[in-house]
Amino acid sequence: MRNALLRAGAAGLVFVLFAAAAEAADPFPPATLGEARSLRDRALADDTGYELLRSLTTEVGPRFAGTAGDARAVAWAVAKLRVLGFKNVRAESLNVPHWIRGEARAEIVAPWPQQLVAVALGGSVPTPSEGLEAEVVPVTSLDELKTLAPGRLKGRIAFFTRRMEKTRDASGYSPAVAARGRGASEAAKLGAVAMVIRSVGTSQNRIAHTGGQRMDDGVPPIPALAISNPDADMIEQQLASGRPLRLRLRNTSQWADSARSANVIGEIPGRSLKDEVVVLGAHLDSWELGTGAHDDGAGVAIVTAAAKLIGETKWRPRRTIRVVLFANEEFGLSGAKAYARAYGAAIERHVLGLESDLGAYRVWGLSSRVPLDKLPVVRAMQAVIEPLGVQFTGNEASGGADIGQLRELGMPVMDLRTDAAPYFDLHHTANDTFDKVDPQLVRQNVAAYAVIAYLAAEAEGGFGRAPKAPKE
Amino acid sequence: MRNALLRAGAAGLVFVLFAAAAEAADPFPPATLGEARSLRDRALADDTGYELLRSLTTEVGPRFAGTAGDARAVAWAVAKLRVLGFKNVRAESLNVPHWIRGEARAEIVAPWPQQLVAVALGGSVPTPSEGLEAEVVPVTSLDELKTLAPGRLKGRIAFFTRRMEKTRDASGYSPAVAARGRGASEAAKLGAVAMVIRSVGTSQNRIAHTGGQRMDDGVPPIPALAISNPDADMIEQQLASGRPLRLRLRNTSQWADSARSANVIGEIPGRSLKDEVVVLGAHLDSWELGTGAHDDGAGVAIVTAAAKLIGETKWRPRRTIRVVLFANEEFGLSGAKAYARAYGAAIERHVLGLESDLGAYRVWGLSSRVPLDKLPVVRAMQAVIEPLGVQFTGNEASGGADIGQLRELGMPVMDLRTDAAPYFDLHHTANDTFDKVDPQLVRQNVAAYAVIAYLAAEAEGGFGRAPKAPKE
Repeated sequence: MRNALLRAGAAGLVFVLFAAAAEAADPFPPATLGEARSLRDRALADDTGYELLRSLTTEVGPRFAGTAGDARAVAWAVAKLRVLGFKNVRAESLNVPHWIRGEARAEIVAPWPQQLVAVALGGSVPTPSEGLEAEVVPVTSLDELKTLAPGRLKGRIAFFTRRMEKTRDASGYSPAVAARGRGASEAAKLGAVAMVIRSVGTSQNRIAHTGGQRMDDGVPPIPALAISNPDADMIEQQLASGRPLRLRLRNTSQWADSARSANVIGEIPGRSLKDEVVVLGAHLDSWELGTGAHDDGAGVAIVTAAAKLIGETKWRPRRTIRVVLFANEEFGLSGAKAYARAYGAAIERHVLGLESDLGAYRVWGLSSRVPLDKLPVVRAMQAVIEPLGVQFTGNEASGGADIGQLRELGMPVMDLRTDAAPYFDLHHTANDTFDKVDPQLVRQNVAAYAVIAYLAAEAEGGFGRAPKAPKE
Repeated sequence: MRNALLRAGAAGLVFVLFAAAAEAADPFPPATLGEARSLRDRALADDTGYELLRSLTTEVGPRFAGTAGDARAVAWAVAKLRVLGFKNVRAESLNVPHWIRGEARAEIVAPWPQQLVAVALGGSVPTPSEGLEAEVVPVTSLDELKTLAPGRLKGRIAFFTRRMEKTRDASGYSPAVAARGRGASEAAKLGAVAMVIRSVGTSQNRIAHTGGQRMDDGVPPIPALAISNPDADMIEQQLASGRPLRLRLRNTSQWADSARSANVIGEIPGRSLKDEVVVLGAHLDSWELGTGAHDDGAGVAIVTAAAKLIGETKWRPRRTIRVVLFANEEFGLSGAKAYARAYGAAIERHVLGLESDLGAYRVWGLSSRVPLDKLPVVRAMQAVIEPLGVQFTGNEASGGADIGQLRELGMPVMDLRTDAAPYFDLHHTANDTFDKVDPQLVRQNVAAYAVIAYLAAEAEGGFGRAPKAPKE
């Protein structure tokens, strides 16, 4: 800088001083930003992520907590992390609940018999082995349950009709999913013998969507099924006749003893602040209906490939990048809770966390949850991925289902937000398979995750602690 | 015309003579064309077709030949034709084969176990009740079977891998469907224990496509299944490892005694040439997996609504419009063959036939199979539906599967060609349901069919006999 000042004529002086001030305010030195850009561009030409996902979906496939596929996935992940050069690779054992899907069937008995496409919701109890038959009472929401005449649900099947809205920001999911999670429990309290919901998904395929649900303690459990959207339409078409509609349901799912699974962890050690970690999370388990390609094989592949590419930078970043492939996100967050228990005492050394769990669709937004004085750092990070089409979208990041558990302990988080519109066409369905994955979008995701993780692992002074979320 | 000539001055004479010549060449009087245009425009604002389809799919649903649904469909059709004012409504009984689908399962046993989505192809025999397991031999086509080393298929499963191409004109179907129809028979001759095909369909849904297939006489039958396109991709991903791939199949389909069904017929009697008929065909049966909305509930609805609207014109056309809702198109053309037997002697009085059996998608083409001197008549008919986006596409019409049986007896035919690209995403699958039907496109179809049938029933002198098709 001194030489530059001496060389500058009177006309250039103001400009040079201004540039110097700007440089001082820049959270990252130019060489670091240059390395981040180079990392980004290498990621855009690298198929490590896509090939990992091909391998996971082809050689392991479905990997629901507690199943043989889950155990194979843990072994697969340990082997892959080792082959890719990760350090401190380990599988940290933990208990997971074990629910066995069995088979679900649903048919309209009256007014006009029709077979429906149904799946059990996670945790559902079975019907009696001969099935059960009852009249359907359509309701739009949990709130509407409270407005039903007393006894209206007694001995009947509650049918939740709410359609999920298709949006880029996933905002349609949360209002639609409420009935899935609590509908059976609330309906059982009113005497219902079963719950059936319209799939919490946006496709018009004859493919039903599964997902977790649970009964409140003390409520006698009832079977909980989802039917595909066209089948929900069929019920509504028949109900429009004004005639009573009777369903026959049969479901053979059952609970087994809890089983063992593991969080699989691997690290790219930092070059100086080895004990400080940036956590890249994804979940290794999946529902059993598809091969968990987008949910969350994509996340596993994206964060693993991103960390691997960071390990190949000329100077590894100062902090450690820790990839955590969480066990059993889908059916109770077992892995995230176990990680929080195991590492909660060391939470101060968790500088930042982010997870990938919204599919390998186009990343369009970066949000953060950091102290406000750290926002210039976030903006400097976002500037490197802006050429990928990623805008800054605010300081209300959640961290996602798994990493969110650590955010609650104070760890700052960022969310890379993917296009949720196509995601909820196949989320939690048999359609979540590798053929639906676009290799170019995997690369775009890997590039974005690699840049953010790399710069977080370099950032001078870290990100402090996450501001408390407004009550959620 | 005389008055006009007298009134014309010298300057106008040539024009008037020219107009007179053009008028003499016009196959239809202006009043008839006006009525056709008015019919077209009324059809575009009428939902008779869409509501018929809603009723058929909701109140009857699947209606595979020989099933209870098939019998309900016949009763439904007789009642609807009567209510809509058709005359001579009748159900003409006939025999249909009766095959019962049962359940099909397929899974990869090695190298990496995975469940696949499978359906039996129509007519398939069952596997042994415990299933069968064998190595897979991938082949791209029937021709490639001939190039296999002797004994290569013995005790193995032939897996036909050909992908169907998505095109507007349905040209991808015929090359892809060859293996479905004859693959099991040809593979069995080479010692295969089963056949599995990639679905003959263009969607990437985990939904498999069914369809007819048959074994040659004297060949010991083997099970014939289709798997969804993503599942075929899965097999190909695993085969790419170079390891032998073993499938386990289980199928419980079976043949039952032949059953009774019926062609359902109704007429809009002509005002003068009552004995001459224009036949509007569609098939009443469907496969059992969906509700036969596009295939061929749409056709039933479209031709019925078109004829009903023709019956409401100010002057009914001179010839009779006969709607024929054929039995069992899907599994052997039983209805079309029975009709040809019953009415073959009267084929000379069948002036023209057309059918709707490619879904309620946008009509974009009209083709004909008429003597060349009748092409100006066809062009005059097409001109009335050109505002609907319908072009003339040549004189090579087939008539379709059912009406084509009558074309072979000499009846001229026309094809209204719909957009086949979306059709083969759901054709013969569980996804063929009412929610996939666009009411506006039903109207566009009804308008096109109504205009063509109306003008055919008016056309001076008819259309002669169909020129022989080049060998197909």
